Amino acid sequence: MLTLASDFGSPYPAAMKGVVLSRCTPRPRLVDVAHDLPRGDVRASAFWLRFVLPEFPPAVHLAVVDPGVGTDRDALVVRAGEHVLVGPDNGLVVPAARALAGAGAASDGPDAQGLPPGVDAFVVDHDDPASATFHGRDVFAPAAADAHDAVVDGRDGWDSTVLDSLAWLAPAADPVDLQFPPPEATAGGLVGEVLAVDGFGNVVTNVSGDVLVGHESVTVDGDLVPVAETFADVAAGDRLVTVGSHGYLECDVNDGRGDEAFGLAVGDEVRIGLDGD
Amino acid sequence: MLTLASDFGSPYPAAMKGVVLSRCTPRPRLVDVAHDLPRGDVRASAFWLRFVLPEFPPAVHLAVVDPGVGTDRDALVVRAGEHVLVGPDNGLVVPAARALAGAGAASDGPDAQGLPPGVDAFVVDHDDPASATFHGRDVFAPAAADAHDAVVDGRDGWDSTVLDSLAWLAPAADPVDLQFPPPEATAGGLVGEVLAVDGFGNVVTNVSGDVLVGHESVTVDGDLVPVAETFADVAAGDRLVTVGSHGYLECDVNDGRGDEAFGLAVGDEVRIGLDGD
Amino acid sequence: MLTLASDFGSPYPAAMKGVVLSRCTPRPRLVDVAHDLPRGDVRASAFWLRFVLPEFPPAVHLAVVDPGVGTDRDALVVRAGEHVLVGPDNGLVVPAARALAGAGAASDGPDAQGLPPGVDAFVVDHDDPASATFHGRDVFAPAAADAHDAVVDGRDGWDSTVLDSLAWLAPAADPVDLQFPPPEATAGGLVGEVLAVDGFGNVVTNVSGDVLVGHESVTVDGDLVPVAETFADVAAGDRLVTVGSHGYLECDVNDGRGDEAFGLAVGDEVRIGLDGD
Repeated sequence: MLTLASDFGSPYPAAMKGVVLSRCTPRPRLVDVAHDLPRGDVRASAFWLRFVLPEFPPAVHLAVVDPGVGTDRDALVVRAGEHVLVGPDNGLVVPAARALAGAGAASDGPDAQGLPPGVDAFVVDHDDPASATFHGRDVFAPAAADAHDAVVDGRDGWDSTVLDSLAWLAPAADPVDLQFPPPEATAGGLVGEVLAVDGFGNVVTNVSGDVLVGHESVTVDGDLVPVAETFADVAAGDRLVTVGSHGYLECDVNDGRGDEAFGLAVGDEVRIGLDGD
Repeated sequence: MLTLASDFGSPYPAAMKGVVLSRCTPRPRLVDVAHDLPRGDVRASAFWLRFVLPEFPPAVHLAVVDPGVGTDRDALVVRAGEHVLVGPDNGLVVPAARALAGAGAASDGPDAQGLPPGVDAFVVDHDDPASATFHGRDVFAPAAADAHDAVVDGRDGWDSTVLDSLAWLAPAADPVDLQFPPPEATAGGLVGEVLAVDGFGNVVTNVSGDVLVGHESVTVDGDLVPVAETFADVAAGDRLVTVGSHGYLECDVNDGRGDEAFGLAVGDEVRIGLDGD
Repeated sequence: MLTLASDFGSPYPAAMKGVVLSRCTPRPRLVDVAHDLPRGDVRASAFWLRFVLPEFPPAVHLAVVDPGVGTDRDALVVRAGEHVLVGPDNGLVVPAARALAGAGAASDGPDAQGLPPGVDAFVVDHDDPASATFHGRDVFAPAAADAHDAVVDGRDGWDSTVLDSLAWLAPAADPVDLQFPPPEATAGGLVGEVLAVDGFGNVVTNVSGDVLVGHESVTVDGDLVPVAETFADVAAGDRLVTVGSHGYLECDVNDGRGDEAFGLAVGDEVRIGLDGD
């Protein structure tokens, strides 16, 4: 199985699929994750990959959000347990790899690569690509295809340890890390960050939903907002704070857009006050 | 085979696919129907499902347009002949089920469940979901996966009658029905309703295309509009009334948007006059 | 394998998939190329098909951008080597067919059909379609399904020569050709054409990227613009001219939209001056 994610829109992802299907034996099942990841925003895209990829069974995950395309940043193949992630060395796949490698990886300190235990990064050493602007087609899709061929050729039809012995992969010396640090605790609350805004306008913060336990309301940037378990607990058009499906505190509007109602965008600081009730 | 439809946009549908692929043995073919169904509009979404799903061979159809997510509305598995539909108990999948169950179901009166003959609804009794806001991932995808596992394990590799004997399904007492009533006949015409507007701006009404037979023009809300077999029968930018691919009267513009030219939106009343010629 | 491309948006493509899956034995792998091809723009859509389809292994390619739906234009099945293209007779699939048939076809003169050697067009002779407005579902999907059934039934599981002997196909007498002529050479430069604008706003011209060799800058409609190998070679928001992944000269902006910065749209004339440095 090979999943595909990018900020390419259309029809560029189909070119990547063509390359994979032309190159792989056997041809893998292809699953689109998303091709409208936040354009050029590695950090927000990394959030979504960490959210979605852990739902999948072992797979090769091809992910390309690459504002540095054509520069000398490396192309990486990253192993996280039985999963394999392929993408640019800009941190994009690291949070997902940390989640896929399991609970130990998420909390333990970094290994020699600066990555969590159970996560191993390799640099791709393929021929020079045909283009300087479409490495999704010319670098990452071939690498994902070749990684898939190797992994399915291993023990029991899926063995990610074979990556250690491939001639076109070399251990990465110093891969780019990307982390989502926890919010800062202050008197009476937390100063967090907006990690993502979804298509509904729901504002996802880096504040753990656990802080809402026992609260009927909190303040968001100073305004009192009810804590609700679900959208329908408030009237249509009203604001709410809830625990999203990723476990984080969300600032939402029932039947409306939270980003507009709260005036929040990706990367903004958000102050959550817990003294309100 | 398992189809997926929702109003989720992206990347949430991929989380549902991951759940299905992790949970199913054997893994089904996945086919996306649409993930941009009219957001939160159960009725218009139900129209599109009824339009598209009857083209498919027997399959499990996962469909989520669920403004009541997190409330106590039930999750349903609905059998319609060899097809199985999974979604919230808000009427979303009922018109498609009626169509999939065949011609008899479409015209006969309701059975004890208030649904047409050949359509049987079951309530899902799974564990409590992990989230209150993403039942697509936490309730409906697992139910669709388990229904698929059961059905493919039956007679000849596909047997929807096995749903009667699954411990996690119970007959639904009073599932929500959803119907598209016919237009009202008036002197010289019909008072109908706009069921849907497609991405081209074509306005789909609930008026049967049959009423156009023998007419060279009709009035739409009082304005005379030519009846045409196809877009190219009128000049670019001109309005036309035609029979759409679903058999209903459509208000369209050649190389333009019917919704704007006619000033019509989903749910609007529309008066069709048949005395024009 | 069967790929699908259209300007249909959603959910119409799913109806085509349902038809193919209901009709084909065995059921093919389905791959979406794009369903947001430039709406009603046969020429720009043909460019994208020529860009993407050559990445694929042998397949049946169903492509529908069909402003003449319901008129008497023919439905075609076009053979290009081991590939089969199915679509309306408006030129849409011809450039892709020329590319798929290989290098000889691209340069040699036309054969008796007015098409390049190695490209053969057949007219579909199926029953009358159910609708006059959705030939994607009622004409092209059935033709693609039947073509796939025939081709996979041939020698070695894939044999496009069987198209010659199918009763529902007849050689096309005079299929519509579509070409992208080269730019016009003028004193000090070239007068080209904008073939496509992608989702990033990158402006793709018909000028070969080869003309940029040895130039540090060129003029675009009189303005001096740097020639760069990749986006990151200029500052964010700055304009550049580069060779795109299709080999053509592109007018782009790093982290911005080239179409807006250059004031160029599909079909526009664009003057490239090569005397700038």
